[in-house]
Order: sequence, then C-alpha cells, then structure tokens
Amino acid sequence: MNPGRCAACRYLRRRCPPDCIFSPYFPPNNPQRFVSIHRIYGASNVAKLLQQLPSHLRTQAADSLYLEAQYRIKDPVYGCVGLISLLQQQIHDVERQLAMTQAEIAFRARHPQAVESNLLNNVGNPSFSNQASSWFM
Amino acid sequence: MNPGRCAACRYLRRRCPPDCIFSPYFPPNNPQRFVSIHRIYGASNVAKLLQQLPSHLRTQAADSLYLEAQYRIKDPVYGCVGLISLLQQQIHDVERQLAMTQAEIAFRARHPQAVESNLLNNVGNPSFSNQASSWFM
Repeated sequence: MNPGRCAACRYLRRRCPPDCIFSPYFPPNNPQRFVSIHRIYGASNVAKLLQQLPSHLRTQAADSLYLEAQYRIKDPVYGCVGLISLLQQQIHDVERQLAMTQAEIAFRARHPQAVESNLLNNVGNPSFSNQASSWFM
Repeated sequence: MNPGRCAACRYLRRRCPPDCIFSPYFPPNNPQRFVSIHRIYGASNVAKLLQQLPSHLRTQAADSLYLEAQYRIKDPVYGCVGLISLLQQQIHDVERQLAMTQAEIAFRARHPQAVESNLLNNVGNPSFSNQASSWFM
C-alpha cells in the first residue's frame, strides 16, 4: 500500500497519480470525507464537477459537496433542503417579531400618555407587545 | 419508442419496467427534472437513494434532490450551501435589528422625558434607533 495515496484513491483502490483530481481535497487522514461524498454523488460525478472549475475554487466546491452529502446522509428525504426550510421559517418568525416590536414603538410614540403608566412594568412582556402591535397589523 | 416510458428511462434509452423506481417521480412531460438530477448525482445513486426510502417519502426526496441539483448547476462552487449561508446572514441581520429595536423600547421606558420631545419625529429613524440601542448593547 502506498501511504502517499489520497483518501479517494485509497477508497477506490487505485494508484494516486501526481495530477489526481481528488488528492488536494481528500487527504488520507480524513477518509470519511470521501466516503460521504462518494456515497451520495459517486466518484466520477465529483471528479467531473471539480474538473470543470478553476483550481482556486475547488476547495470550496469540495467543502460544500461534503456538507450537502452529510446533510443527505443525516436526512435522506430532505437533505439540506430541510435546513433551508427551517432557516426560512426562522427568518419569517424573526421578521414578524421585528414588525410587532416596531409597531409597538410607533404606538407608544403616538399615545405616550396611554402607555406611560404601563411602560415600566410591561417592557419585554410579550402580551403587551402583541396587544400594542395588533392595532397596527 | 414507447410513449409511456418515464423521463428517466427515455433519457437512459431503456425499457421502462412496471416497477420502475423513477417512473412515479420523473414523468415524461418534464424531461429536464431527470436530466438535472442525473447530471449531479447520476442515475444509479438516485435510484439507490429512492429505493432505501419507504414509498410515501420518495416524492419529497425526489423533489429535494431536484432542488439541490438545480442549485448545484446554478452555482457549481457552493450549490445550496451558498443559499444556506445567505439565509444565516439574513437571520443574523434581522436578529440584530430586533435587538436594537427592543433596546430602543427599553430605553424609552426608562427615560420617557428624555425621548418625549424627539419621539414623534424620530420613529423609524435608524440613526435614532442605533443611538438609543448603543447605550444598552
């Protein structure tokens, strides 16, 4: 066994040529990285994808393929599309919270007397925020 | 040519068997869907992935694989990991804006006299928000 072979060539049981397309991105000390990518995309598809890119972008491509492969192994149904849905839901929730908080500020600006008595007690109280913002949304 | 063959069997120039793994998810009227998936994952990897899932989850898996393939074709370096980074940045920005707005409410609650004169003029003015929140963050 040639100890200098990259993780891909070791896994594929082949000689690691000096111009190996995998070698710079799949070092022998991290065999799992290639195993994951190979399981989801197949070696030849990964090689094709890397070859079509300029060499200075191949590390980022190998990293993102590895991440996507990891997500797909973890969640074979949704892969990283599941994470995208979660993040979109999170953005929606925070934007809604922001709109409510901005509505609360606008309400307080227009009705300083009405809220003054409750102001100190209710800061950070979600029910008060909901009530104030519901008048504007 | 058999007009009943699915998009995958047409593309792969093979007979479409009654129990074809691709047929329910790659109809002949949308050939591009299989072309994209085949280009990124290869037919045999997609077949393996679908076969390992219970049949009621295969439509979602085929859809998410197609989406990921589309992202990878559009952005061969980052694929949908690029979108994940964008969404994470967007969440960070909205959370920061929310924290600033909440700090502004807290400030106004504690200093009603100090802000009363500026309140109506400055609602929604980002510089005022930044100033108020900077005292608390």
